[in-house]
Amino acid sequence: MPAEPELHAILGMVRSGSAVTRPELLRRSGLGRTLVNQRIAQLEASGLVEEGELAPSTGGRAPRRLRFRAEAGLVLGAELEARSMTVGITDLAGEPLEHRSLEWDVLAGPEETLRTLRHLADELLHSPPAAGRQLWAAGVGLPAPVEFRSGTPIAPPIMPGWDGFPVRDRVADNLGIPVWVDNEVNLLALGELRAGAARGTDDLVYVKLGTGIGAGLISQGRLHRGSQGCAGDVGHVRVVDDPGVACLCGKRGCLEAVAGGGALIRRAAADVEEGKGSPYLAKLMEGGRALRVADIVQAAEAGDLAAVDYVIGAGRHIGMGLAAVVNFFNPSLVIIGGPLAVAGDRLIAAIKEEVFHRSLALATRELTIGQSQLGAVGGMRGAAFMAIDELFRPAFLETWLAVGTPVGMRAP
Amino acid sequence: MPAEPELHAILGMVRSGSAVTRPELLRRSGLGRTLVNQRIAQLEASGLVEEGELAPSTGGRAPRRLRFRAEAGLVLGAELEARSMTVGITDLAGEPLEHRSLEWDVLAGPEETLRTLRHLADELLHSPPAAGRQLWAAGVGLPAPVEFRSGTPIAPPIMPGWDGFPVRDRVADNLGIPVWVDNEVNLLALGELRAGAARGTDDLVYVKLGTGIGAGLISQGRLHRGSQGCAGDVGHVRVVDDPGVACLCGKRGCLEAVAGGGALIRRAAADVEEGKGSPYLAKLMEGGRALRVADIVQAAEAGDLAAVDYVIGAGRHIGMGLAAVVNFFNPSLVIIGGPLAVAGDRLIAAIKEEVFHRSLALATRELTIGQSQLGAVGGMRGAAFMAIDELFRPAFLETWLAVGTPVGMRAP
Repeated sequence: MPAEPELHAILGMVRSGSAVTRPELLRRSGLGRTLVNQRIAQLEASGLVEEGELAPSTGGRAPRRLRFRAEAGLVLGAELEARSMTVGITDLAGEPLEHRSLEWDVLAGPEETLRTLRHLADELLHSPPAAGRQLWAAGVGLPAPVEFRSGTPIAPPIMPGWDGFPVRDRVADNLGIPVWVDNEVNLLALGELRAGAARGTDDLVYVKLGTGIGAGLISQGRLHRGSQGCAGDVGHVRVVDDPGVACLCGKRGCLEAVAGGGALIRRAAADVEEGKGSPYLAKLMEGGRALRVADIVQAAEAGDLAAVDYVIGAGRHIGMGLAAVVNFFNPSLVIIGGPLAVAGDRLIAAIKEEVFHRSLALATRELTIGQSQLGAVGGMRGAAFMAIDELFRPAFLETWLAVGTPVGMRAP
Repeated sequence: MPAEPELHAILGMVRSGSAVTRPELLRRSGLGRTLVNQRIAQLEASGLVEEGELAPSTGGRAPRRLRFRAEAGLVLGAELEARSMTVGITDLAGEPLEHRSLEWDVLAGPEETLRTLRHLADELLHSPPAAGRQLWAAGVGLPAPVEFRSGTPIAPPIMPGWDGFPVRDRVADNLGIPVWVDNEVNLLALGELRAGAARGTDDLVYVKLGTGIGAGLISQGRLHRGSQGCAGDVGHVRVVDDPGVACLCGKRGCLEAVAGGGALIRRAAADVEEGKGSPYLAKLMEGGRALRVADIVQAAEAGDLAAVDYVIGAGRHIGMGLAAVVNFFNPSLVIIGGPLAVAGDRLIAAIKEEVFHRSLALATRELTIGQSQLGAVGGMRGAAFMAIDELFRPAFLETWLAVGTPVGMRAP
């Protein structure tokens, strides 16, 4: 079928609100009246656009505003982390309608994990906000490098058993809709860009402080995924000279080995066992309970001095690692997210101190370092935004509009 | 005036060769015959497009091929380095026609430097390949962070006296054409992307090894300039623990302080003075001549053992610094350029060894590390490509096509 760039252009103007009446669309598109009216009719027939209230008249009959029908379809967003899963549904503008989170270990493997994802999706699709609406597309975030084109995790360090598993094809088969898959930290960055702390920002780095430490990069408003989909690895910058600190990656002195959540937990537990640790954490550990990053954050908030030390020490090392990132990438915004980020002001202050001390003056001239706004649902939101972006790309939009909805289609 | 996106689209197809006959343009654009013919007539009238030879018939009368007239105008590209200046002219496809290089110290300041640039431009415009052609636009690269929007260097560390100088406005006033200005390492990267070692690459890092060490980044086929135009700073990654190695930036152990050309020269000269240095370099230094990076490279090529040591040592440290860059940015290609890169295989081998040893396996799975192809004219070529890209952006193209040529216009 012929390419119809003007269809995409007109829908884009209505979606963004940059031109919403026929006179505005004629003026902005530079296209002829007949063509514009044909395309609007096609978009109305598809249910993507409808006529709304009257706009002010600029002479003659007042034109009607066209409205993007974000409610025409549903999008599923899913974020898998090492130990949890969040699945939600949004409208076609990415507005969240409902979501579910549960503790889940990705080590359960792809088959069982995707079965659980499917159960959550079914639950969401039977929830009140989904009533009478159809699921059109899905986005999935994985805690792994992902080959975006095929939607497949590649050599995932914390997901043995997932290497090369066709996540995209499997979810698409299962749900009968087009699906896109990416690294979950990339989607956290995308979520904040579209609906959180990074709205209106062009160049930013989202740093997720969890068991490990990873980053999502936005260059000129677009995700920078890198050639293997593994851009954003900041956990293995060398930040300490102490040759005693070995990292899982096989090297020494890596940021993740001294400031990752896993490292903090190991140190806190060892300190408790040596009797010099945090009384707050020692109490939690009675009876053999394993510590989590959230425990350390809570202990620090409760004023436990050892825990405050862990948080500030981690912040300093993270700042040392990020200084190099700021010099290299020159973002205007660094967003700190993930379980450790909940530690808030103390952590951010320690990070800032080191970044501003160690980065070049020009690179920090207009740099902001702050917390994520979307928190735990950011990855799910980002996954939905990714799916929406892909759904409305010109070539794919034209293909599925020809049959009405994208349901039953494959991602291109 | 109304936006005419289809004008840009049609010219784009003819320029890239993706559609060059009227039937192809009709099919690819999805536009009506009248509109396509109108736009082609407009492009022919402007001299940007002409009818060429017959294409094979696909039934009916054989259509004529349309040809982009790259000879319709000239573009000036200029690269300023700390100690030299290269200025050239190209056609509208960026093909180089003629260039001049000279030794020049940017410390002479902006007024004198831009006067010299103007002299070289005049010389080039009177050279045989320019005969009968008009200069349409210029691109300028500076060894400084540049605010791209205004074309102004910001806090340039090696160009005191240039801070905030309106380079773009001054050159535009002087030549009467639209001008764009960027950091010269960015333009080296752009040159290799379009016409050198990086053709067809999406994500790459160009590392310039000169007196200092800097990088230009390409993300998804576009320059990543960063929020202050200072992305690509790799010279101040800490690569040695020795607290004795102080850097000009005020910190210690920076890559530039151990492997920058300036550092190599200082070490070589000190070694000679202590009597333990290179006999080859000692000879050059007789009579008080100051060493250059090129001297060390030549000495290494001549088999001088001390010089070989300097080159290999620098390569190792550069590799250590680049390992973090490779993990973070995940390029598929790292191009090594600048005076030290001429040292070739020995240097590249040492860099590779450290990068592959220290980077994550996935990030190096399809990584190539190689030398620049364009060498010393790469920045000039990149400057011309930048000017051409900007000249043909939709909004600006329409504006200047309305008056015929961009001559006398301002960059938007």
